[in-house]
Amino acid sequence: MAIHYPNGKAYEQGRQTEDAAVNYGSRGMTLEAELNASNQYYRAAKRAVIYKKPTPIQIVKVDYPQRSQAVIKEAYFKTPSTTDYNGVYQGYYVDFDAKETKNKASFPLKNFHPHQVAHLNACLAQGGICFALIRFVTLKRLFVYPVSALNHWWEASLQNGRKSIPLKAIEQAGFELHPQLQPLIPYLDGVDWLIETKRGTYHA
Amino acid sequence: MAIHYPNGKAYEQGRQTEDAAVNYGSRGMTLEAELNASNQYYRAAKRAVIYKKPTPIQIVKVDYPQRSQAVIKEAYFKTPSTTDYNGVYQGYYVDFDAKETKNKASFPLKNFHPHQVAHLNACLAQGGICFALIRFVTLKRLFVYPVSALNHWWEASLQNGRKSIPLKAIEQAGFELHPQLQPLIPYLDGVDWLIETKRGTYHA
Repeated sequence: MAIHYPNGKAYEQGRQTEDAAVNYGSRGMTLEAELNASNQYYRAAKRAVIYKKPTPIQIVKVDYPQRSQAVIKEAYFKTPSTTDYNGVYQGYYVDFDAKETKNKASFPLKNFHPHQVAHLNACLAQGGICFALIRFVTLKRLFVYPVSALNHWWEASLQNGRKSIPLKAIEQAGFELHPQLQPLIPYLDGVDWLIETKRGTYHA
Repeated sequence: MAIHYPNGKAYEQGRQTEDAAVNYGSRGMTLEAELNASNQYYRAAKRAVIYKKPTPIQIVKVDYPQRSQAVIKEAYFKTPSTTDYNGVYQGYYVDFDAKETKNKASFPLKNFHPHQVAHLNACLAQGGICFALIRFVTLKRLFVYPVSALNHWWEASLQNGRKSIPLKAIEQAGFELHPQLQPLIPYLDGVDWLIETKRGTYHA
């Protein structure tokens, strides 16, 4: 199902790609650009203060052709220690990562790094609102999926269980987002739902 | 006054500098290395989950000599939009920046960028615990200084008031930290004090 904007353009055509200053790979950039725009909207509307963290870089060589500006001449991408997005919303600490798949029936767990899942759980234990934002690209469906639900499948996969989360399970334990104009990705709707229904269920 | 560690070394000698992977300037690096170690301690002890954000980089040119690893060949440091440190502690969102001065009588406000002060206030308005960690290097004194107090001097300086915060004012409105072995910078003591005394005083 195509979601149509008031201007008649299909949702897919409306995706932003030009906004990404750091564009060193196609994987996930579209989702990132949409989230950056959504974060900007939420900040401007004073709804929340949430940013994407910069990509961690290991700098090896820097030149100083002028006093005023250093030029990095050799550097490498590092594996992030944490998730990509965090910030504050109505007194709550919010932490999430955004992932997408072209699969239609399930979400492959290999999209998560072990340290990201560990980080989400550490934040959850401190009382944060922690989730994965999962997009099924082909299906054009988008979910806020709580880390408490992710844990179930993650731990099973470590014990030779299945290596993906069925879409049905994400539908049941997650909150579906419906893209709109402002913000493009209204993920605070999912955060509200997490606060109302899931807060404090870490040990449940 | 020199603070002595159990091994008899003065505090100053105990500072970590080798830990900083990204070492492209001396300014503030010592404080940064101490904070990284402190954050690591707090995370390991499950007291809080707080990280320094990576330095934002504008990437211009990337080579791919091998499939496995990209090499950044041209990039520039960007001005950060936010503060350097954030995370979660006992359900609270914590956000701060760390600054130091060699001055003995006051802290120069030029150490803060306008967007950093704006960011701290935006987070404060969302119910976050927001402060500046200020070190007087020569005096070997370290304070957690609430953004609500910083605002007073910041706004005055914009109206042709003095361009620095007197040490006496920081002593009065701040919380002095006493460096120790674990963590090196026990800034959560100051966060506890902010929670007990300052929480919700944004509009006061």
